[in-house]
Amino acid sequence: MPNAPRTTTLAEEVSTEALAQGCKQAARVVAQCSTAAKNRALHAMAEALRAHEDAILAANAEDLQQARAADTPPALLDRLELTPDRIAQMAAALQEVASFADPVGAIDATRRRPSGIEVGRMRVPLGVIAMIYEARPNVTSDAAGLCFKAGNGVILRGGSNAFRSNHAVADALHDALRSEDLPPEAVTLLPTTDRKAITELIQLNNHVDLVIPRGGEGLIRFVDENSRIPVIKHYKGVCHLYVDRAANLDIARDLLMDGKLSRPAVCNALETLLVHEDVAADFLPMAQEALAGVELRGGARTRAILPEASEVTEEDYHAEFLGPILAVKVVADYDEATDHIVTYGSNHTEVIVTDHLPTAQRFTREVDASVVLVNASSRFSDGGELGLGAEIGISTTKLHAYGPMGLEALTTQKFVVQGAGETRHDVDTL
Amino acid sequence: MPNAPRTTTLAEEVSTEALAQGCKQAARVVAQCSTAAKNRALHAMAEALRAHEDAILAANAEDLQQARAADTPPALLDRLELTPDRIAQMAAALQEVASFADPVGAIDATRRRPSGIEVGRMRVPLGVIAMIYEARPNVTSDAAGLCFKAGNGVILRGGSNAFRSNHAVADALHDALRSEDLPPEAVTLLPTTDRKAITELIQLNNHVDLVIPRGGEGLIRFVDENSRIPVIKHYKGVCHLYVDRAANLDIARDLLMDGKLSRPAVCNALETLLVHEDVAADFLPMAQEALAGVELRGGARTRAILPEASEVTEEDYHAEFLGPILAVKVVADYDEATDHIVTYGSNHTEVIVTDHLPTAQRFTREVDASVVLVNASSRFSDGGELGLGAEIGISTTKLHAYGPMGLEALTTQKFVVQGAGETRHDVDTL
Repeated sequence: MPNAPRTTTLAEEVSTEALAQGCKQAARVVAQCSTAAKNRALHAMAEALRAHEDAILAANAEDLQQARAADTPPALLDRLELTPDRIAQMAAALQEVASFADPVGAIDATRRRPSGIEVGRMRVPLGVIAMIYEARPNVTSDAAGLCFKAGNGVILRGGSNAFRSNHAVADALHDALRSEDLPPEAVTLLPTTDRKAITELIQLNNHVDLVIPRGGEGLIRFVDENSRIPVIKHYKGVCHLYVDRAANLDIARDLLMDGKLSRPAVCNALETLLVHEDVAADFLPMAQEALAGVELRGGARTRAILPEASEVTEEDYHAEFLGPILAVKVVADYDEATDHIVTYGSNHTEVIVTDHLPTAQRFTREVDASVVLVNASSRFSDGGELGLGAEIGISTTKLHAYGPMGLEALTTQKFVVQGAGETRHDVDTL
Repeated sequence: MPNAPRTTTLAEEVSTEALAQGCKQAARVVAQCSTAAKNRALHAMAEALRAHEDAILAANAEDLQQARAADTPPALLDRLELTPDRIAQMAAALQEVASFADPVGAIDATRRRPSGIEVGRMRVPLGVIAMIYEARPNVTSDAAGLCFKAGNGVILRGGSNAFRSNHAVADALHDALRSEDLPPEAVTLLPTTDRKAITELIQLNNHVDLVIPRGGEGLIRFVDENSRIPVIKHYKGVCHLYVDRAANLDIARDLLMDGKLSRPAVCNALETLLVHEDVAADFLPMAQEALAGVELRGGARTRAILPEASEVTEEDYHAEFLGPILAVKVVADYDEATDHIVTYGSNHTEVIVTDHLPTAQRFTREVDASVVLVNASSRFSDGGELGLGAEIGISTTKLHAYGPMGLEALTTQKFVVQGAGETRHDVDTL
C-alpha cells in the first residue's frame, strides 16, 4: 500500500511505561558521565543535526503538507517550518549548551560539625524529565540538550503536527549518542501522537521525576490536574509596570515602550500600566504618544486625562493580551498599586519605576513575583538575560524553582558527609 | 447536657477553604515581618506555652482518657502524653528557633549583566504550608515555630487522638501572636478530626503552597495520591551500611552498632549490612558479636560464616524493620553492593566504610540517596546533625528539597533586578 496514509504511531508496540523505564536506565548512565563526555556528545548531536538536514527537512515537509491540508493558520505553519537556517540554529544552540558550566558534581561550602563529620551538598541530576510541548520542532533538540547537560534523561512529547519533524530530529540525536557509546534512550521521544500517552506518562511517578509542560493554558492545566509527578509551569504572564510618584518619567516611557512594543506576544511583555495619581496628568499623555497603535483601556480617572481611552473591564485586568492592548489604572498610592498586583498579578514579572530608594526597597521585598525589577524592562525576565545561560521554562509556583529555569533547576542537591568513624550514640527522644 | 461526650468539631462551621484563605492573608503579614518581630513573637509563644501549662495538661488528660478507653497501645499513649517537662521542652524549642538565622531576605551574590542590569536572588517565604501529622502534640508548636520563622503561614492537622491537646497548644500560640499584634490565623489548626478536611485541604492549590505529611506510610500515601499541591515526603528509610574490602573493620563495627542499636525505630537506623566477600569471614563474626540480641538474616554465603543467622527473604531486603532485625548480604564487589542499593534502597541514607579514596569518591558521586556518608554513622542523617538547625521533615524525592529539610527548605528564591532604565529592544524570535 505505497499510498496508504502514514500513521503517526510507530509500528513497534512499546508501552509508555517501558519507554520511561528505558529512559530511567539510560539516565543513570548520563548521570555518571564526565563533563567532557557530555560536551563531546553535545557537539556530536550538533554535527548529526547538520548531517541529517535532508531527512529532517523531508520529514518537516510532510508535516507541513498535512498541516496545510488541515487549514492550519499561517502563524502555526511558520512555527512548524524548519529551514536549513533554523536547523543550523538548533545545532549552534547545542554547541552553546556544551559551553555552559556543568552544574553536576559541584559541592558547596563544606562545614565541619561539632561531631567531627564534614558536611557538604553535592549537586546531582534530577533523574528523568518529561517535556510536553506544543512548540516548534527546535524544542526537541533544545530541551534534549539542556536536560542531557544537567545529567538527566528526557522524555519528549511534542505537538502532534510536528510528529515527523520531531522524530527526524530525535533520530539525529540518537545517532550522535550511539556514536559516543551512550544509550539513545537518554533522549526518548514518545512514538505516538495519541493524547492517551500523555495521560500515561504523567502517572509514572516511579520513573519520571519532573514534568515540564510548555504550550497553551489548556495543555498546561490538563497536565497539572492529571499528573502524579511534580509539575513546573506557568499559566500566563500578567506583568505590571508601576510608575511611582517619584519616577523618572523618561525611564518610565522607555520601559513602557520596551515592555509593550518590543515583543507583545511573549509572557514577559506588559499588560497593565499603574500610574501614581501625582504623575498621571504628566505621564499618561506621554504614554499615549509613545504607544501609538496600542489600544489603552482605563477607568474614569484614566479617561479624564486620556478621553480616547476605552473603558476597562475586570477581565481586562486579568488578561494576558499578547497584543496591542494595554490596561491602565491611576492609583492613589503605592498600596493601591501593590494591592492591584496582588489581586491581578500572575507571580511572573513586576516592574516599578521610581527614584525613591525606600519605595524601591519595599517593592523589591514585598511584591510576590518570580522576577521583580526596579527601573529595568520586564523583557529582562528571561533565563539568558538574567544570566542562567539558557532557559528550559519558567515557574510561577514556588516549589523547587521560581522564575526562569536554567541548567541548575534541572538538578538537586544531596548531602555528602565525610567522617573518620564518628557515631552518634545518643538515644534522644523524638 | 453536662455529661454529653465532647464532639471533636468546633461549634463554628467554617469551611476548610475559608480557613486556608484566612491563613494566606495572615501569611502575607508574616512574610513582611522583620526578623526581630518574628523572634519576639517566638519568645512570646514560648512564654504562652508555659502560661497555658494547666490548660494544656487538662486538655491532654482528656485526650489520654479517651485514648485509654479506646485501648490505645502504651507506646502511642506515651507519644500522646504531655508533662510539664515536655511542655518546657516545647517552649525551649521555640526559643531555639528564634536563635536561628532568618533565611528570609538574604540576597545571594548579585551579578552585573552585559545589559547593565544587576541581578540577584532574594530568599522569600513559600507562603502557606500544610502540615498533616500523626505525631506527638509537640509537633504542633515545633512546626508552627519553624514555618513562622521562615515567614510562612501554617495550617496544622494533627492526629485525631491529640485533638484537644493540639487545640490547647494552638490557643497558647494564638494568644502570643495577638499579644504581638500579629494575626493568629498565621497558625491555623483545622477545627475538626474529620478526615474529609484533609481531603479538602490538599485540593486547595490556590491557597496552599506545600504539603508536608508526617506519619505512617498509609497517611503519606493518601496525601500524596490525592493532593493537588506539591507534597514533600519520605515513605521509609531502608539504609545500608556497605563494608568495603578496604574498610577499617573497627570503624565498620562502631558504625554498625550505632546505626542498628542506638535507636532502631527511627528512619536513619540501619536495615541491611552489605559486606565485601574479601572481608566477610573477618567482619561477620565481629558484627554478630557486636549486635547481640539482633536477629541476622542472610543468604547462603552469610550463613556459611554465621550458621546461626536465619534465612533472608526478598521482602527482608525491602523492609524497614524498625527493630532488632538486620538483613545481611555478602557481595562480590562494589558493583554488587551499589546494585543492591539501587534495587532496594529508599533514597534516604547510605553509608560506606572504606579507606580506599577512589572507592569513597565513587560511592559519594554515584549513590543516589539524599544523604551519602563515608566512614560516619547513618544516624547523622538528621537536620540538626547536618547543620540545618532544626528539621521540619525529610524528603526522599528530589524536587525542591532532597534530604533533611530546615528553615531554608521552607523558602524559595525570587529574582531581584536593579536597573537604571535599561531596555532590551531586541525583537528576537522564539
